[in-house]
Amino acid sequence: MIAEIICVGTEILLGNIVNTNAAYLSEQLALLGITCYFQTVVGDNRERLLETLEIAAKRSDLILLSGGLGPTQDDLTKETVAEFCSKKLVEDKASRKHIEAYFAERGMKPSENNWKQALVPEGARVMENHNGTAPGIIVEKGDNQFFLLPGPPEELKLMFEESVAPYLRSISPFVILSQTVRTCGLSESFVEQQLVDLIDKQTNPTIATYAKLGEVHVRVTARAESQKEATKLIKPMVKELKARFGNSIYTADEGVSLEKSLADLLRSANMTLSCAESCTGGLIAATLVGVPGISDLFKAGFVTYSNKAKRKLLGVKKGTLQKYGAVSSQTAEEMVRGLLAETKTDVGIAATGIAGPDGGTKEKPVGLVYVSCNVKGKITVKECHLKGTREKIRRAAVTEALMLARSCVLEQLSKEILK
Amino acid sequence: MIAEIICVGTEILLGNIVNTNAAYLSEQLALLGITCYFQTVVGDNRERLLETLEIAAKRSDLILLSGGLGPTQDDLTKETVAEFCSKKLVEDKASRKHIEAYFAERGMKPSENNWKQALVPEGARVMENHNGTAPGIIVEKGDNQFFLLPGPPEELKLMFEESVAPYLRSISPFVILSQTVRTCGLSESFVEQQLVDLIDKQTNPTIATYAKLGEVHVRVTARAESQKEATKLIKPMVKELKARFGNSIYTADEGVSLEKSLADLLRSANMTLSCAESCTGGLIAATLVGVPGISDLFKAGFVTYSNKAKRKLLGVKKGTLQKYGAVSSQTAEEMVRGLLAETKTDVGIAATGIAGPDGGTKEKPVGLVYVSCNVKGKITVKECHLKGTREKIRRAAVTEALMLARSCVLEQLSKEILK
Repeated sequence: MIAEIICVGTEILLGNIVNTNAAYLSEQLALLGITCYFQTVVGDNRERLLETLEIAAKRSDLILLSGGLGPTQDDLTKETVAEFCSKKLVEDKASRKHIEAYFAERGMKPSENNWKQALVPEGARVMENHNGTAPGIIVEKGDNQFFLLPGPPEELKLMFEESVAPYLRSISPFVILSQTVRTCGLSESFVEQQLVDLIDKQTNPTIATYAKLGEVHVRVTARAESQKEATKLIKPMVKELKARFGNSIYTADEGVSLEKSLADLLRSANMTLSCAESCTGGLIAATLVGVPGISDLFKAGFVTYSNKAKRKLLGVKKGTLQKYGAVSSQTAEEMVRGLLAETKTDVGIAATGIAGPDGGTKEKPVGLVYVSCNVKGKITVKECHLKGTREKIRRAAVTEALMLARSCVLEQLSKEILK
Repeated sequence: MIAEIICVGTEILLGNIVNTNAAYLSEQLALLGITCYFQTVVGDNRERLLETLEIAAKRSDLILLSGGLGPTQDDLTKETVAEFCSKKLVEDKASRKHIEAYFAERGMKPSENNWKQALVPEGARVMENHNGTAPGIIVEKGDNQFFLLPGPPEELKLMFEESVAPYLRSISPFVILSQTVRTCGLSESFVEQQLVDLIDKQTNPTIATYAKLGEVHVRVTARAESQKEATKLIKPMVKELKARFGNSIYTADEGVSLEKSLADLLRSANMTLSCAESCTGGLIAATLVGVPGISDLFKAGFVTYSNKAKRKLLGVKKGTLQKYGAVSSQTAEEMVRGLLAETKTDVGIAATGIAGPDGGTKEKPVGLVYVSCNVKGKITVKECHLKGTREKIRRAAVTEALMLARSCVLEQLSKEILK
């Protein structure tokens, strides 16, 4: 079963947006064990889309399209695919209702062109869009199956997860299963070196490493005839990885982020959390609050961007700021000390640094960040030298702060156990 | 002159990397006024690359390829294009010297397979690679010109700037220029309806709309023989858009985000800013701090996730929380009142709501968010009904808060002017 991906959108051809949909779909197909030989981008143009469909239909079985399902005149993916498959467009009642409800919920009225989104090719399978109004569509022509997916990434991803993946799994002759072991604080080349013997002799399961800002993920993938068999292949490899990387692994569960693993750890230890941020400017708090249900342990955050705020809200001493500067180990230390005094939480994390692009000096260059953690009075500060754009430095600083919190909490817990 | 882009690399087809090269090349072509109708991604595979070249050569004049010029056995772009063009590979002396020097500078010796990179198709134009060892190549077959560029983005970009762009400019008959007008608070279909007369009769310049979370961008694009002439075509259309959308336009400048436009507005009014967040959990602050140089006006932020923090840090009354709840217009109001009392800034923004997935009730469903703004004592609260995932609701709440702040500040400024 060979697939290919067609992304429709003049904005991609103009370079206005980076085609993350193609990367997402490719990755998902690979996870499902479906080979993808081509990705094509074509504009919102009937003739050229028809030409692209013609080429794709000859060489692939499954053709995944994204984009061009919107309500505007530009959007013609559905119309063109229907034409290519010689199908009439008919109104899908459920989709019309969904559009009605979508607008009603927002206290808005659909305009005339919104109803266009309720049209689907005759005989097509319709997939609900839980993040938007354009339904997804699976339509066949001969041996080809065309999957029409919305362009906005959050709509596409949710629809793929909810509808496309289960469908593809149901028509695929074997099962591909993978499990990802996520490490933090290690470099990719270090992780790879530790795995070289396993990588060299790998057949089934295979292992591959992926680097993400401050993290390295190791994915174990098995192909088998059943879920059970695949699980059996994966299990010993994951055990081996745990033996090799120990506490550097923050999770071996699917979809658990570093912040979620920290939240789980704190919850199990019955500890509450707060944060104080300078250069990260709220990003640590925002990352934590991205974890559903965190309100039971995350109490408060301070964005103390000015020195005055650091002094007033966190009690950082004037002398400390004058002598060592806002970006210093001493300030980072006082930030978490004051934070716990103020919030009465068990754990506090803080970050202060220079995110750039301006503000760097020879002694304190852009990318110098201090992260600190206070666990029930025990304070640890870490000096980090981060690289990249303002955005990248801020994100990396968040990861450093979360990693530090995790290791400090683990240390505290092991101490409590040893007592 | 029609161009198309072919990116070669199995890692792109596996979804391991996002194809930023295609976006970069597309954008550069558009800036040069060269139309690009297709982007294709194909793996490191001779047969499929030949097939792709065949298709591209029929429909495009200029074919830009990236990737597959490395020293390993996998890399076969050059060999395959040479085969397609019926050219022999011969050693390019300058490239060999460059490789020698590159390794010598790093105190390393090239291995046998590195010399492969000095081979080029007979009669080809060679472009130096100042960020790596693979030379760029321009080779012709009939009316087609093939541009072979390295895969690593920093090598590709530098080579494009230094060699490809000047060459393309020398053979291109015109200039393309575009300007984007960004609106907030309007729906895409509303914007389009307001523009339908312009879209219907558009030729040069053309206009197109793009929806982004809470924002709609309108891009005006002109094609002309000179930069000056293109600017002259764009100007009246942008003026017309300003007349139609007025204050809903937050910028007509390139690369200005909503938060940047708010920061610029506040700076011009000499106003300082602070924020208090519940459901957005730091994301408003983090978004603002993403604007370089914001430290001169953004003073402090509070993430008051618990009721206790709302009371202690912002002075929200116990009675208010008990009677109306944390997610209420009254609490949102008290949050910004307390915020300004605490921070002594001119403007304060706050958000409180239910981001989900849990915590919703019939009266207060997931997505109910109150954003509030306090401009020197004048408080405005807006009730929003947002949809989607936790992540999407939080992001949309940030946009709502920034939009509210923008309109409240504008109102205050116009009042001050009228005084």
